Amino acid sequence: MNILDIISKKKAGEELSKEEIEFFVSGYTESVIPDYQASALLMAIVLKGMTEKETVFLTEAMLKTGNIKDLSSLGENTADKHSTGGVGDKTTLIAMPIAAAMGMKIAKMSGRALGHTGGTIDKLEAIKGYKINLSEEEFIKTVEKTSLSVIYTDETSVPADKKIYALRDVTGTTDSLPLIASSIMSKKLSSGAKNILLDVKMGSGSFMKTKEDAEKLGRLMVKIGGENGRRVGALITDMDEPLGLSVGNALEILEALEVLGGGGEERLRTLCLKIAAAMAELSFSVSEEEALKAAEEALISGAAKEKFREWITAQGGNASFMENESLLKPYPPRAKLFAKESGYFTVLNTEKIGMAALLSGAGRLKKEDKIDYFAGILLKKKKGDKVEKGEVLAEIYSESDEKAEEAKKTLEKTLAVVKEEPQKTDIVIKTIM
Amino acid sequence: MNILDIISKKKAGEELSKEEIEFFVSGYTESVIPDYQASALLMAIVLKGMTEKETVFLTEAMLKTGNIKDLSSLGENTADKHSTGGVGDKTTLIAMPIAAAMGMKIAKMSGRALGHTGGTIDKLEAIKGYKINLSEEEFIKTVEKTSLSVIYTDETSVPADKKIYALRDVTGTTDSLPLIASSIMSKKLSSGAKNILLDVKMGSGSFMKTKEDAEKLGRLMVKIGGENGRRVGALITDMDEPLGLSVGNALEILEALEVLGGGGEERLRTLCLKIAAAMAELSFSVSEEEALKAAEEALISGAAKEKFREWITAQGGNASFMENESLLKPYPPRAKLFAKESGYFTVLNTEKIGMAALLSGAGRLKKEDKIDYFAGILLKKKKGDKVEKGEVLAEIYSESDEKAEEAKKTLEKTLAVVKEEPQKTDIVIKTIM
Repeated sequence: MNILDIISKKKAGEELSKEEIEFFVSGYTESVIPDYQASALLMAIVLKGMTEKETVFLTEAMLKTGNIKDLSSLGENTADKHSTGGVGDKTTLIAMPIAAAMGMKIAKMSGRALGHTGGTIDKLEAIKGYKINLSEEEFIKTVEKTSLSVIYTDETSVPADKKIYALRDVTGTTDSLPLIASSIMSKKLSSGAKNILLDVKMGSGSFMKTKEDAEKLGRLMVKIGGENGRRVGALITDMDEPLGLSVGNALEILEALEVLGGGGEERLRTLCLKIAAAMAELSFSVSEEEALKAAEEALISGAAKEKFREWITAQGGNASFMENESLLKPYPPRAKLFAKESGYFTVLNTEKIGMAALLSGAGRLKKEDKIDYFAGILLKKKKGDKVEKGEVLAEIYSESDEKAEEAKKTLEKTLAVVKEEPQKTDIVIKTIM
Repeated sequence: MNILDIISKKKAGEELSKEEIEFFVSGYTESVIPDYQASALLMAIVLKGMTEKETVFLTEAMLKTGNIKDLSSLGENTADKHSTGGVGDKTTLIAMPIAAAMGMKIAKMSGRALGHTGGTIDKLEAIKGYKINLSEEEFIKTVEKTSLSVIYTDETSVPADKKIYALRDVTGTTDSLPLIASSIMSKKLSSGAKNILLDVKMGSGSFMKTKEDAEKLGRLMVKIGGENGRRVGALITDMDEPLGLSVGNALEILEALEVLGGGGEERLRTLCLKIAAAMAELSFSVSEEEALKAAEEALISGAAKEKFREWITAQGGNASFMENESLLKPYPPRAKLFAKESGYFTVLNTEKIGMAALLSGAGRLKKEDKIDYFAGILLKKKKGDKVEKGEVLAEIYSESDEKAEEAKKTLEKTLAVVKEEPQKTDIVIKTIM
């Protein structure tokens, strides 16, 4: 076997065999195949595609370069969730406690924010004392005890993915469904849960801009999971406006608390319930209806909120912010955006709201950038809400006037008041189970 | 400007601007842009193509990284020829002396054999004393004196081409008309001749397998030349059987001598006359008819043969082989291939004859391989000739029995005797002037 023949085959649009894909993945991971040959093949894959079969082989070949986490001591109901990344996405903070309260075992690894998308680990670090690094033993023990733990992954669990992802990033070869699907699924499969729910975002705040692509990606990942003996489902969900009202680390924790307390913004609450319910469908083989009822029960009864406290405390976090909001909101908003006319509120480009939060100090452009945990954007309206001239549309939290001003400039370009009532979309667009 | 944007643009099938192409070519040549980004872009170019305009820009950007040879002291009638590579192609040895005898000034740089295709420089090195390296000054002086000189080029004249070509070779990105055209034309333009004739081979012994591709390549290169102020023409010529009867270095020189002596194989003679005539059309603005008449006159009168002697002698070569053939044919054929039945002679795959010659010792698989100048294949039949059972189809010259046997095995698979008379093709399929 020879990498040039493999490149030529893909270039001609032919299907690669399992052996050829393994030859590439292991050869590249071990640096036997140089970057310049790998990038030529990746570009050919972007432009000529891969069949479902090839994508399954690619995922498995990548998975083989690392280890699958052993969660066997946690039983059959281990469950995990993955979101393809959006703006204001704090579902992990809500749906995982619900799922844990429902009896699932959640041993979850999360990442940091980059660009316009947030990262669960940054949000958790806004909590004083929360330990994002646990040893493998501590991690499993925490889940055994509290049914829920979330730790940091630097994504070294799948060496092939780490290397291929870095190369795609600098060669213009990111936008390929087979490459995205195999990257996500190799990581998710390696984290070991038996039941996996994928939240595939679509719309202006996400990487998938069309429903067609989001659905294709969802189906492909469900298929890959099934081929690897996991139960996998996917929700295609709307990201044409931020999820909930807050975008920023501490701000999002406070919003998550509201939902866990039985209140909160409706679309966000709905999505969290549907995610936890879908995880239960996979884990317990119950009907959608039963699962949703149980999820609502876990939320309304306060069991999910107590699970949240248990989890945060178990990982060393000081949970007193649950009674004292000001610990996570130490300063008032530094700037506000007002409606210049009356009409209906709408969001022109959700990604820009993510960028505004980043500019306020809540995110990072480069991996090395430092975060202001209390910074961010608090929206006062949802898409389709009626707005009177002079009303506040959004508050900007920031430790500096300059950053707040920069964030405001970006926000002004994307938060709008329009004459015609914008069409509302359901938060869950499609369910693939 | 940014290489990732350029890659994305080409990936989307868009046209790159002059500035973007220059940014890539100069950046890659200066190693500011790494191999892995260049190869991703090259793959996108292979799969998405380039417009004629982009190809002209690419050629010019490559040309800019080197120097154009100054042939101004040789006047307006400097002429050059380039062949895209074939099997048994000794036209340079015949057509250049004809062209020089007709009054053109030929300052030619040639390369070595690689794989199944021969190289003029290897053929000339079969001649005792012939100097393939002359200083720039000696080179120009030789052309001033004898109107013809052929020296070795290691293809460093266009640094961008050298680097891009080497990368294409190891990334499966060789088969692209814009990349082939810009590579050939950047080198030809840098060699400085005002009038350039391209011999674009098509068929089983060449890189262009279809007439359509060969014609596209020819037209593209003529266009590039015109945009750079040169007069360029192209002949699309048949390479579905070897050119002439010999494949091998010294053997080809002897065959060239036959043609220069007024005899030789008909298709080979025709092509050499047409090449020299097309060069004259470009150089002297004469009609095709006049040009062809002048070329025939130069051949029949013996002027071309004398020009050949003058040239070889001027570069230090001992021309006594012109009277004593055995100097270039020191040993008899080591093996012969006989017809196993009666019928018509045909060639199944010309490239394989080139490989047989290589195996006999006449060529090289790797740049470092040593050549046996006297080795090679001598065909005794042309496509379509009647053959009686037991007749000799080909002789194999080699210094070793093993090599001759290997060459014979390959030959047996591609030289065939068939019942039905194979269709004959004209040697010149199309003229683009």
